[in-house]
Amino acid sequence: MPEFSLSKEDTAVVFIEYQNEFTTEGGKLFEATKEVMEKTGMRENSTKLLEFCREKGILVCHAPISFEPGHKEIAAQPYGILAGIKDGSAFEAGSSGAGMFEPMKPKDGELVVKGKSGLCAFTSTNLEFLLRQHNVKNVILAGFLTNCCVESTMRTAYEKGFKVYTLKDCTAATSMAAHEAAFEHNFGMFSVPTTSGDIMAAVTA
Amino acid sequence: MPEFSLSKEDTAVVFIEYQNEFTTEGGKLFEATKEVMEKTGMRENSTKLLEFCREKGILVCHAPISFEPGHKEIAAQPYGILAGIKDGSAFEAGSSGAGMFEPMKPKDGELVVKGKSGLCAFTSTNLEFLLRQHNVKNVILAGFLTNCCVESTMRTAYEKGFKVYTLKDCTAATSMAAHEAAFEHNFGMFSVPTTSGDIMAAVTA
Amino acid sequence: MPEFSLSKEDTAVVFIEYQNEFTTEGGKLFEATKEVMEKTGMRENSTKLLEFCREKGILVCHAPISFEPGHKEIAAQPYGILAGIKDGSAFEAGSSGAGMFEPMKPKDGELVVKGKSGLCAFTSTNLEFLLRQHNVKNVILAGFLTNCCVESTMRTAYEKGFKVYTLKDCTAATSMAAHEAAFEHNFGMFSVPTTSGDIMAAVTA
Amino acid sequence: MPEFSLSKEDTAVVFIEYQNEFTTEGGKLFEATKEVMEKTGMRENSTKLLEFCREKGILVCHAPISFEPGHKEIAAQPYGILAGIKDGSAFEAGSSGAGMFEPMKPKDGELVVKGKSGLCAFTSTNLEFLLRQHNVKNVILAGFLTNCCVESTMRTAYEKGFKVYTLKDCTAATSMAAHEAAFEHNFGMFSVPTTSGDIMAAVTA
Repeated sequence: MPEFSLSKEDTAVVFIEYQNEFTTEGGKLFEATKEVMEKTGMRENSTKLLEFCREKGILVCHAPISFEPGHKEIAAQPYGILAGIKDGSAFEAGSSGAGMFEPMKPKDGELVVKGKSGLCAFTSTNLEFLLRQHNVKNVILAGFLTNCCVESTMRTAYEKGFKVYTLKDCTAATSMAAHEAAFEHNFGMFSVPTTSGDIMAAVTA
Repeated sequence: MPEFSLSKEDTAVVFIEYQNEFTTEGGKLFEATKEVMEKTGMRENSTKLLEFCREKGILVCHAPISFEPGHKEIAAQPYGILAGIKDGSAFEAGSSGAGMFEPMKPKDGELVVKGKSGLCAFTSTNLEFLLRQHNVKNVILAGFLTNCCVESTMRTAYEKGFKVYTLKDCTAATSMAAHEAAFEHNFGMFSVPTTSGDIMAAVTA
Repeated sequence: MPEFSLSKEDTAVVFIEYQNEFTTEGGKLFEATKEVMEKTGMRENSTKLLEFCREKGILVCHAPISFEPGHKEIAAQPYGILAGIKDGSAFEAGSSGAGMFEPMKPKDGELVVKGKSGLCAFTSTNLEFLLRQHNVKNVILAGFLTNCCVESTMRTAYEKGFKVYTLKDCTAATSMAAHEAAFEHNFGMFSVPTTSGDIMAAVTA
Repeated sequence: MPEFSLSKEDTAVVFIEYQNEFTTEGGKLFEATKEVMEKTGMRENSTKLLEFCREKGILVCHAPISFEPGHKEIAAQPYGILAGIKDGSAFEAGSSGAGMFEPMKPKDGELVVKGKSGLCAFTSTNLEFLLRQHNVKNVILAGFLTNCCVESTMRTAYEKGFKVYTLKDCTAATSMAAHEAAFEHNFGMFSVPTTSGDIMAAVTA
């Protein structure tokens, strides 16, 4: 049993980048994330959590990333992770890679975060607008990559005063070492690290 | 002749909400903005400015606003301007009102700002991401409403350190009084108020 | 009687720039704000409101602005309102002008917002951090200048999802025209315009 | 030799939290950071880098953190890293722990970032204001803790479009494992990881 309880009224789950590029055979980053996804079972666990949220009426925000053909949103000579995305033409709008992971496609009426061109799910998007308009206090984070977008989002959410929960069984990185280092060294500073099972128990309690 | 010059390399024009709701007969706010649009000729002037930018290779960012059916992005019990938008079902995605003003439709390859659910064109969008990735220093603002979204965007852009130019002949409010009060009392604090003619002269110079 | 009520637990008043530069004979902007201050009685009304907050235990945030000698925080060649501040050496740290208005000096234990180098009281400061850490939902704004810092703060607070209240009798601009135009055309879009009397009645109710 | 060069005109070094709490015997976190500081020599390296910046005229921003007695800026019932800071009364304004590390005290005329109550050096401060007003493009980060404030600052700076450089020999965490995991898994995504020696060579080149 978790040591916390969650009220449905002021809680939201943000599902970050459940897109074929990561989740599905043929996706450009699938080979990189496959091992962690399989070890943590994060695709199955996340799907279950999404279904739980729909059943209970917990606010869901899907936060995909995409770029127009040519990745013209990104600098002509980028560096770091954005260079990798541009060079690999990853998450190109309209491509199958940018498409949502089939079992977790947004349903009509669910909130889909718009504008995500960067890493943190807040920085270039309407995510904060959505959360504040819905009086959200507790933000539960799941998705890709543990130590990239999920971690940046966690850090920002913490500073913005949300109570942040991160899910070790619903996140994945490009190696178990990166995934585990993030939880071991960083996630406890900016969130309550937990699991999807504990989240569901905390809501039901 | 303007007292400033502009380099094409570090300048962008942000066209805010050139959408039928404002610009076109039948739009939900057309009757409200019609008088100012006609008096300032802002639709014709803006169209010319857009064509000039395309010709000269100046960066263009289109910044429309839209909401999913039901306006579920907005609070259940909103107040202020967002209450007006929700109550009137304005800018509903897929509706003709949310459609772009025909003469100023984005061309393939032009940047379209995503996420605009609020008033300031920075707050809930990827606008800053786009401008920074493109090394923009000078931001030229045009569109709707002079004292609402244009003014909020101007104030934010100024604080972010951009050199901001606002165009009296390419903006419109719901009354000449509101339009003129904004320029008279506020715009000089946060921008260089000017005209599209001067902008074009400043680039060509 | 106001049409709203306010809970002490989730409400804060932000007092913007009650500093001698504006409020007191000899201040560099005193001659500019004097007329409006006298007509609205904003110094007396604000002092009363501050005392009311102290009595009732309502959270108070003082938000002064200041610059190091030489105003080196500001660009070498600024424009707009920051140019005016730098050219006039206004709000220089340690000067009497930057000092707090005597009747409204912060008491030990009251929150003083830090970092204000720009206009919006959020942009360069820890104001949002303070408000979120204290679970504030309602933000009441008072101070200087109606159409500059108060208005920028109001616009940002609104987008951030706070319920914003602005006080016509506790704000001042450099002319009655600017003060009134702000309330007439802009403040209703981003706040509930009201008075200090109504705020006090709404808390007591 | 580094593979990059740096122009003095658009570069700034941000020194994060060189305060006795971390750097000096008796500081509340000194025992925790001591091992990494000694192994990386970060105090000596950072002092040398600061002297180099002063000599060359490179912009320096000191970014200390502090809280008023009682840590009333922080929530009544905080969690995560802010709970640790509050419970331990760390960085209390006026205490020796909050004092600057003697060899790196800001000189008159150097910029001192204000408002830092959170972890990211941008979020609750005037740092971005300072960098934009000074036309900074390259941001070099040094200080404490590698995987906490330095990393959050790096992530935000990257999204804001700065070219970010992080210094493995001028940062420290509470364990070598945390320090090294940050550089191994995360820093290359959001910065150019390098050393103070390479920075100095890149400026001189």
